Amino acid sequence: MSKMHQSRIASVAERLAKTNSDVIFITPGADLRYLTGYDALPLERLTCLAVRSNGDAWMIVPTLEKPSALAHGVPDMGIELLDWQETENPYDLLIGKVGSITNPLVNNLMWVEKAFGLQGAAGVNVELAGKLLSDIREVKTADEVSYLHEAGAAIDTVHSNMHKWLRPGRTEREVGKDIAEAILAAGHVTVDFVIVASGPNGASPHHELSDRVIQVGEPVVVDIGGTMASGYCSDCTRMYVCGEPPAEYLEHYSVLMAAQEAARLHARPGVSCESVDAAAREVLESAGLGEQFIHRTGHGIGMETHEEPYIVTGNETLLVPGHAFSIEPGFYFAGKYGARIEDIVTCTEDGIKSANNTTRELVVL
Amino acid sequence: MSKMHQSRIASVAERLAKTNSDVIFITPGADLRYLTGYDALPLERLTCLAVRSNGDAWMIVPTLEKPSALAHGVPDMGIELLDWQETENPYDLLIGKVGSITNPLVNNLMWVEKAFGLQGAAGVNVELAGKLLSDIREVKTADEVSYLHEAGAAIDTVHSNMHKWLRPGRTEREVGKDIAEAILAAGHVTVDFVIVASGPNGASPHHELSDRVIQVGEPVVVDIGGTMASGYCSDCTRMYVCGEPPAEYLEHYSVLMAAQEAARLHARPGVSCESVDAAAREVLESAGLGEQFIHRTGHGIGMETHEEPYIVTGNETLLVPGHAFSIEPGFYFAGKYGARIEDIVTCTEDGIKSANNTTRELVVL
Repeated sequence: MSKMHQSRIASVAERLAKTNSDVIFITPGADLRYLTGYDALPLERLTCLAVRSNGDAWMIVPTLEKPSALAHGVPDMGIELLDWQETENPYDLLIGKVGSITNPLVNNLMWVEKAFGLQGAAGVNVELAGKLLSDIREVKTADEVSYLHEAGAAIDTVHSNMHKWLRPGRTEREVGKDIAEAILAAGHVTVDFVIVASGPNGASPHHELSDRVIQVGEPVVVDIGGTMASGYCSDCTRMYVCGEPPAEYLEHYSVLMAAQEAARLHARPGVSCESVDAAAREVLESAGLGEQFIHRTGHGIGMETHEEPYIVTGNETLLVPGHAFSIEPGFYFAGKYGARIEDIVTCTEDGIKSANNTTRELVVL
Repeated sequence: MSKMHQSRIASVAERLAKTNSDVIFITPGADLRYLTGYDALPLERLTCLAVRSNGDAWMIVPTLEKPSALAHGVPDMGIELLDWQETENPYDLLIGKVGSITNPLVNNLMWVEKAFGLQGAAGVNVELAGKLLSDIREVKTADEVSYLHEAGAAIDTVHSNMHKWLRPGRTEREVGKDIAEAILAAGHVTVDFVIVASGPNGASPHHELSDRVIQVGEPVVVDIGGTMASGYCSDCTRMYVCGEPPAEYLEHYSVLMAAQEAARLHARPGVSCESVDAAAREVLESAGLGEQFIHRTGHGIGMETHEEPYIVTGNETLLVPGHAFSIEPGFYFAGKYGARIEDIVTCTEDGIKSANNTTRELVVL
């Protein structure tokens, strides 16, 4: 693994050398884990990787996390490992090692207190790394693709067992708790989110678990995901109903299935992200459901549930093999109900492959 | 609840009026949840609260999260709710409403990309809110104290059942998976961390679950925590051994128990945070274990597992009733073993009350 990470760090240095920036700083999160394999805790104490455009690299960690950094083989990747005691100033220690800096970059999700700490110690303003990092991460290797499909298969087993938990008379929260335990039992190491949105709550795309009791005949949106030991995420939405749904809902739902399928059939290397969004949107708009589709069609996924590339109007990025993203159109009627169908797909040489393969039909329990 | 949140927001505005800052911006995280009760998802789309020193307040959310913000009663708190569509610029929309800004603050854990987005739209640099927010949050109300004790009781039930999962011949990862499920079953809504560090792995305070098989006679550090529906966190470390530990270990362990007790007996209103650290440290140092105690004695806890006040050399903050923090001295021998005993305690009128009440003795399974 250390060879793979070493080459990822080298790739960052190479890209850095083509900009007017000389150093990049990266704190714990998906960027750091991607580059080093070190899933450091995002805590108040500074842990930070620094990479220079000439390839030199350092990582500073709190002394109590040094054994953990060593266990991850940080020094084997050609990174000089530094540690700081509770009463030292880690920013000064790190900058002292890195040397003079003229134009540093930071990972976009760095906490502003860390960014300002680095600015203070370096005496220069930092800028966002932006696409310098996301361009590398958004195109997945064959291994990463297989991790995403493994995560997809794990969340599929949870959806396949939904009949065990989702019943009229139970609350969303009760069902959600069972689902959370099942997400772990299916092989995820963390539960990232559990949406169980019954009846009118389904009209809120990011509804939180409530004490509402699920009723017969109500559509229920179940959007769930977790992170596997590999670090890669699952994310899949399926629709359920206990009993008979309203006839009008079934009509809308068949349009939604067609919209989701249209986007899946359209997506392939060479087409733009925004055109995948348009493919789904046009079907819903033609059926008069455009106003009810209040969000973009999808988001990239990898070591983060949401990352580049976003499947949204304005994103002209052309798909290439290795892109991984969600296709998840929906419709939302305030006070009544909602629906969403979501698959994670990976772009292949001539189309896409879905990581989620349970039925996309409305599941009647 | 909306009255409580309204008064918390008013308190932020009052404190703001005493500084030279005119506006504070707060993105999703514990600060936002504390002030508004809205546990918004920390995602790439901007959700942001703005509070002016005159008490005016706005919150901007993505259109798809508007139903969720409404369900949390955001407008009932006197906050003007704004929403933005996928292709709009939310920074410009928010700043346009807030009006002219001379010296804005941001929550310390805001992602730097959001902070720079606000800077760009406002045309002025932002500064860290720092103690303006943490001074309010670090002193808990009676309700918050009871939530922390409820969380403590929940994690205590997991420790009480450790004999069901922790056995020689099982790997740390297997045991950790069972513990994670038990953390949810005990009433937490999320599993925040699970440390199972056997034998030499115990020398790494933040050891991650590994495939190491637990052996007879090895001390095992189990440090676990989660978040309850209330939003408040648990965090408790207990020590286990299957069979007979080394005699030398038992000697060290009795010193550690005395150190942890010394800090608990010392902590009370009017003593400094650093003196609580010193109380534990002196006991370990006197016994020749000072070098092995490589971290501070504790951290504050509330809606975040780690927050102010930190129990560390240099923190002269005096304890007051309502302070909530961990007392967790430890010792770490590289290549051999480690130990830590951790309770969450809340400061009362005349001492502390522990939220964790399972035995602090080394538990022999």
